[in-house]
Parts: sequence; structure tokens; C-alpha cells
Amino acid sequence: MTVSIRSFTKRRPGIVFIVSAPSGAGKTTLTRKVLSIYPEMSLSVSCTTRTPRDGETPGKDYDFVSEAVFKRMLAAGDFAEWAEVHGKLYGTPRRMLERRLRGGGDVLLDIDVQGARQIRRHYTSAVSIFVLPPSLDELRRRLAGRGTDARKTIDQRWNNARHEIQEIQGYDYFIINRDVDEAVKQLAAVIAAERLKVCRYTQKPR
Amino acid sequence: MTVSIRSFTKRRPGIVFIVSAPSGAGKTTLTRKVLSIYPEMSLSVSCTTRTPRDGETPGKDYDFVSEAVFKRMLAAGDFAEWAEVHGKLYGTPRRMLERRLRGGGDVLLDIDVQGARQIRRHYTSAVSIFVLPPSLDELRRRLAGRGTDARKTIDQRWNNARHEIQEIQGYDYFIINRDVDEAVKQLAAVIAAERLKVCRYTQKPR
Repeated sequence: MTVSIRSFTKRRPGIVFIVSAPSGAGKTTLTRKVLSIYPEMSLSVSCTTRTPRDGETPGKDYDFVSEAVFKRMLAAGDFAEWAEVHGKLYGTPRRMLERRLRGGGDVLLDIDVQGARQIRRHYTSAVSIFVLPPSLDELRRRLAGRGTDARKTIDQRWNNARHEIQEIQGYDYFIINRDVDEAVKQLAAVIAAERLKVCRYTQKPR
Repeated sequence: MTVSIRSFTKRRPGIVFIVSAPSGAGKTTLTRKVLSIYPEMSLSVSCTTRTPRDGETPGKDYDFVSEAVFKRMLAAGDFAEWAEVHGKLYGTPRRMLERRLRGGGDVLLDIDVQGARQIRRHYTSAVSIFVLPPSLDELRRRLAGRGTDARKTIDQRWNNARHEIQEIQGYDYFIINRDVDEAVKQLAAVIAAERLKVCRYTQKPR
């Protein structure tokens, strides 16, 4: 294949960026902040069967659906990935994701380790980032500090976190969320770098 | 392998960053500027048989050696990579490179496409970046604008550039040097991102 400088100024296929983190690692704040740096990037809105938390906007933070609706969508193959987390169902609508990628847009998926595995299998050029808390002790403090969850819930989330961290070995990048501004910079650097990969311009999109 | 958050705060093996570019693409300015952002990173000082240009400091920009000395070093296996470029010999001293990497230091190698191939073969986790001029026309203007080279030399460098650009397919990243500050930011992002790769902390160093 012959390449020219112009090859690298043409449109390339959209990139899927997966961001996963144990509950309490600060993933939501991080992804919101990075989207303000890259406003052309879109955050995929997941469907979930959990109830909205205070301050969450339906259709923006999540599409809140009943279990019946979720299962119907699942059976119809409407999800690019789905997972059960802490007893609730979460899924990424496939159609919106595919449309954005085809248009050359980059999409950020804020999903758990199970969903990440499914996405990686189908979108082999997806980039995955695992956000870590500074320590497990700090994670427990953050989970307790939210003040919204019962002791039992906190214990369960913290225990899950310990297991989830093992999944980092399937991820491309890690970010330790000690200071949120520093973590935002690191995530922004990963996005900037991945957009500069030669293979994204020289290989045929799948 | 079991990982802990602490695994990612430990020392990792040093990373080799290869930066290549056709003559006139602005690589030297770019690497100098990025080293001021990452002062802990070292630039490998190459040996060369070419004569110093105005403003070049021996031992800082290059180690200027005779052809006899270069060939003796070559025969002794002292170079991690070497190449003949525009009739002059260039090489990266192996001992300094290895020492820095063992110490966990990242090293920037400002080398040509031939040298890059040799480094990649021996340091499989090396990261390579190819710097492109905005266009071949602009490259010719920059080469002519230096005012230090004869017309024939300019033609030769420009023709080499056209061929060298094909080698970008063996590189990991590209940077189009349209605006030097933007290009510095991009190179800095690649370095920041590569330092966050999970595999650099979870795999045994070679």
C-alpha cells in the first residue's frame, strides 16, 4: 500500500473508548470532564433497570427502563454489550453506537468489566482504560463518604472492587485517580495518542 | 498473575521512544521542546561522521567522530542501531541506552528509518513516532529556507523524504508538524499515554 501525507488528513473510522472502574473510583466525574475537552466525542447513554439517583437526568445519564423492556431489547439483539451489576441490568444500545462510529465519531463507553469484554470481542480496535482508586482503603472511604448507601451495600461494592481490579489485565491503559485534574489530563492524553495511531489510517476498517 | 493497585505505582522498565522524520520536518525542534516537558527523559546522543553544523555542541547534539573510529565501534558491536544517511554514518551507542533503560529511564532516540527498524527488532516494546511535514511542497520550502544547503542537496533530501514517508507503515504513531506547539503537545500525549499502558507493569521485562 502506498501512503501519502494526505492519507493522514482523511477521515478515519470512529474509535470506541471503554472506561471502566470499580464503583467509587470517580469514573463519572472523569468522563464528564474529558468530554468537555473533546466536545466532538459522544458518551454512549446506557439503558438500565436501576432507579435514577438524585441529580441524574433520564436520556442524558441513562435511559431508565423496566426489566421487561430491557429483556425485550436484549432478546431483539439491541445491545452491543450488557451486564448485570449489583443486581441491576445495564446495556449499550447497538444502533446508536454503530451509527456514530460509521460517521467517524469517537464514542466513550462508561461500562463495567463484563461489558468491556463483550465490546473488545466485537470491536477489536476498541481502546480500554481502567480507572483505579489510589488504594482500597481510600475506595472504602469514598464509598462511605457518599452517604447514600447502606453499610451492607458499601461492603458489597468494596468486595466487588477487589475482584474487578484483577480484570485490569485485559485493559490497555490504567489511570490512578488520585487527583481528578491529573486523571483527566491522563485520559485526555490517551485519547489524543490513540487518534495518532498510524494503523487507524492505513488499515481497512472492519 | 494477581495484580494490586500498588503494582501500578512500582518501577517499570524504561521505554524507548523512537522519533523519525524526513530531513526538514522539524524533528530536532520538536524533540528538544518535548524534553523540556519531560526533563527526566533522556535524549540519546548519537555518534556521527558528519561535520558539526553551526550551533551544534559536540557531546550534546552529537558525538562527532572520524570514520575510522565509527567503524571500529561498529565492528566491536558498540551500536544499538546504525545507518548511513546522505553519505554520513550515524549510530546509537548501545551501552548508554541499556544502562538508562535498566535504571527505569525513558530514552528518546532521534534516528532515521533504517535505525528504527533495527531498534524495533531488538527492543520489541519500543514506541515509534513518525513526524510528517504538512505537505511535500511545504517540506521543499523548509529545506530551501534553511539556506545552508546547495540546490542538489535539497533535491536529494526531498527525494529521500518521498521514499522515507512510505516507512511510516512500520511506525506506531504519526504527527503532522504543521504548528510546532501543537506537534509538541501531540508528542507529549503519546509519551504520557504509553507510560499508562497496563502491559508495561504486568509483563516481565525482556
